[in-house]
Amino acid sequence: MVVIGFFAFDTDLEGKEKEKERMKAVWFENREITLTALPFPEPGGNEALVKVLMAGICATDTEIYQGYAEFSGIAGHEFVGEVRKAPADTDLVGKRVVADINCGCGKCAWCRCGDPRHCESRTVLGIRGRNGAFAEYIAVPVQNLHAVPEGVDTLRAVFAEPLAAALEITQQAHITNSMRILVLGDGKLGLLCALGLKHFSSRVTIAGRHAEKLAIAGNQGIDTLAVPSGETSASAFREFRRFDMVVEATGSPTGIREALELVRPEGTVIVKTTSHSPTQIDLSAVAVNEIHLLGSRCGDIDLALQFLANNRIDVLPLAEKIYPLSRFTEAFAHAAARGSLKVLIDPTQSGESVSFSVE
Amino acid sequence: MVVIGFFAFDTDLEGKEKEKERMKAVWFENREITLTALPFPEPGGNEALVKVLMAGICATDTEIYQGYAEFSGIAGHEFVGEVRKAPADTDLVGKRVVADINCGCGKCAWCRCGDPRHCESRTVLGIRGRNGAFAEYIAVPVQNLHAVPEGVDTLRAVFAEPLAAALEITQQAHITNSMRILVLGDGKLGLLCALGLKHFSSRVTIAGRHAEKLAIAGNQGIDTLAVPSGETSASAFREFRRFDMVVEATGSPTGIREALELVRPEGTVIVKTTSHSPTQIDLSAVAVNEIHLLGSRCGDIDLALQFLANNRIDVLPLAEKIYPLSRFTEAFAHAAARGSLKVLIDPTQSGESVSFSVE
Repeated sequence: MVVIGFFAFDTDLEGKEKEKERMKAVWFENREITLTALPFPEPGGNEALVKVLMAGICATDTEIYQGYAEFSGIAGHEFVGEVRKAPADTDLVGKRVVADINCGCGKCAWCRCGDPRHCESRTVLGIRGRNGAFAEYIAVPVQNLHAVPEGVDTLRAVFAEPLAAALEITQQAHITNSMRILVLGDGKLGLLCALGLKHFSSRVTIAGRHAEKLAIAGNQGIDTLAVPSGETSASAFREFRRFDMVVEATGSPTGIREALELVRPEGTVIVKTTSHSPTQIDLSAVAVNEIHLLGSRCGDIDLALQFLANNRIDVLPLAEKIYPLSRFTEAFAHAAARGSLKVLIDPTQSGESVSFSVE
Repeated sequence: MVVIGFFAFDTDLEGKEKEKERMKAVWFENREITLTALPFPEPGGNEALVKVLMAGICATDTEIYQGYAEFSGIAGHEFVGEVRKAPADTDLVGKRVVADINCGCGKCAWCRCGDPRHCESRTVLGIRGRNGAFAEYIAVPVQNLHAVPEGVDTLRAVFAEPLAAALEITQQAHITNSMRILVLGDGKLGLLCALGLKHFSSRVTIAGRHAEKLAIAGNQGIDTLAVPSGETSASAFREFRRFDMVVEATGSPTGIREALELVRPEGTVIVKTTSHSPTQIDLSAVAVNEIHLLGSRCGDIDLALQFLANNRIDVLPLAEKIYPLSRFTEAFAHAAARGSLKVLIDPTQSGESVSFSVE
């Protein structure tokens, strides 16, 4: 194997890829998205070169586009890939993988405890100081990779990262079967939170504005509340401070206010929304009612893969459309549109997008 | 005992008081404070008539004046009194008492569990639907009263209510001796929090802008950080996300932002400030760093009395000046002034205020 400048790639790569000197990738910078040809990633000694098979567009990507995290580079942090090169762990080559998005320094207390999610000098795939998955190839530290079980197809496996973020709640808070839990927001993350929490409490309700999205949760046994236009979840419930836990997954800076109206005194509000704009809340109500506000982000990828492998959650109804990388701009507009479900990118395809119906 | 209209009072009252038909009281309404003569309180069947011996002006009172809680009535919720009449518990008569400020309905789940602090239909002394202690007499439900131990003089006992609020933190969160705790704000509540937390962790630091107030904590073994004018606590520390727990007791709507800069990932921020104005915070940082924000309000009065009886905390240095009720307006301006310590009201005195030096 010979590495020469930016254009080197492994001699194991297919002949067709060898002919290409560059790969297709999507570059985010200054609120502009550019489909461009970029040098292949050059994996470091502890990294693997991974061919991206499928990537998901997350609400965080649309926030990044609007300035969140001040990221410039190749975005994309939800993906399934196939390992092409992994000098540090050759057993990985050929395996389908998903990845933890946080890449720690390996030296600090967080990393030494095995949790690089909060490493101060971490990079984060497609979010902070490291290119992501909206490209044909991506370089990822081998310790971040998790092999996808055979029974989990790629279309399901691409949900591992957001499902892990949803299940993170169940690892942060003590949840019992009789707890009244409300998920605010019927977006992709809200749905995954409700579908995950259902396995920990029998009293989960999801509230949102889109009947067809609520039905995805309803079909899997979750109570739903359709909030009419012009009303809030709180007014639609006509109840006040009823829930032991409220998961704020609206993606809106004002969602937290509704959460604070609906959670009981000494109850817990899970803060899931990461917005580019600051939020105004009445902290006096937090103090007086002794509310727990608990921030929640990335979770345990292996736990998510277990849920998928055991069919504990059916994620397929959340997938809406698959686009080739060449039509990323269109895909991104689709993903950013109000009411959209999960929009996916398949960098191995060219030409037309692939729609599919929910099974 | 004969009760006639508003002007009835117990025949046990001293002759001098019998002659009066009304008592002196301070009425808060629409951002106006009026020293006035009002009918004696008429205790309900389960209430005691308490003669106020000493009352403290709290930062919450200054917030109420500015519109917080939309209260109109006799304010004041920190006090020591002497029970004059208590038909429901005659053993209380003659005792010195302090009081829980939350008066529950007695019927809801919260009240049945013995914790009326979060009863939905509660009244709160001097804050919500019930007159408070800036008066010669106050009516209080007998179950709210706690006898003051003999060894705790009135000047110390008047700190029981705010000290209980400070110690509430120690009953909400799991605090270990090695936890790094920062108290933000060297006001009265911040000082009490630091003095209380010192008994649970050996690594408590208090940050504030007033050297003489920080010295009160410093003299009792707490690390202090004087924040220079023009700097924030975060910039003065030149450290970032260092503390396991940050207690936000600045009283300022912007204090929470500093707290979020100083708490470690997965750390806890205690929300103590109750301000009349909403606060703008970056909830994304809460989510990404998985911070616990924990609202904290009133605490266990008996625990506070124990701390005072055992001299675990010396509260006397926090007392600044005692005014008679007739000079309430002046006292209130003093209490609202930047940098003031605890300003007290002695309704049993007339004439000049009493200053005292710290022992």
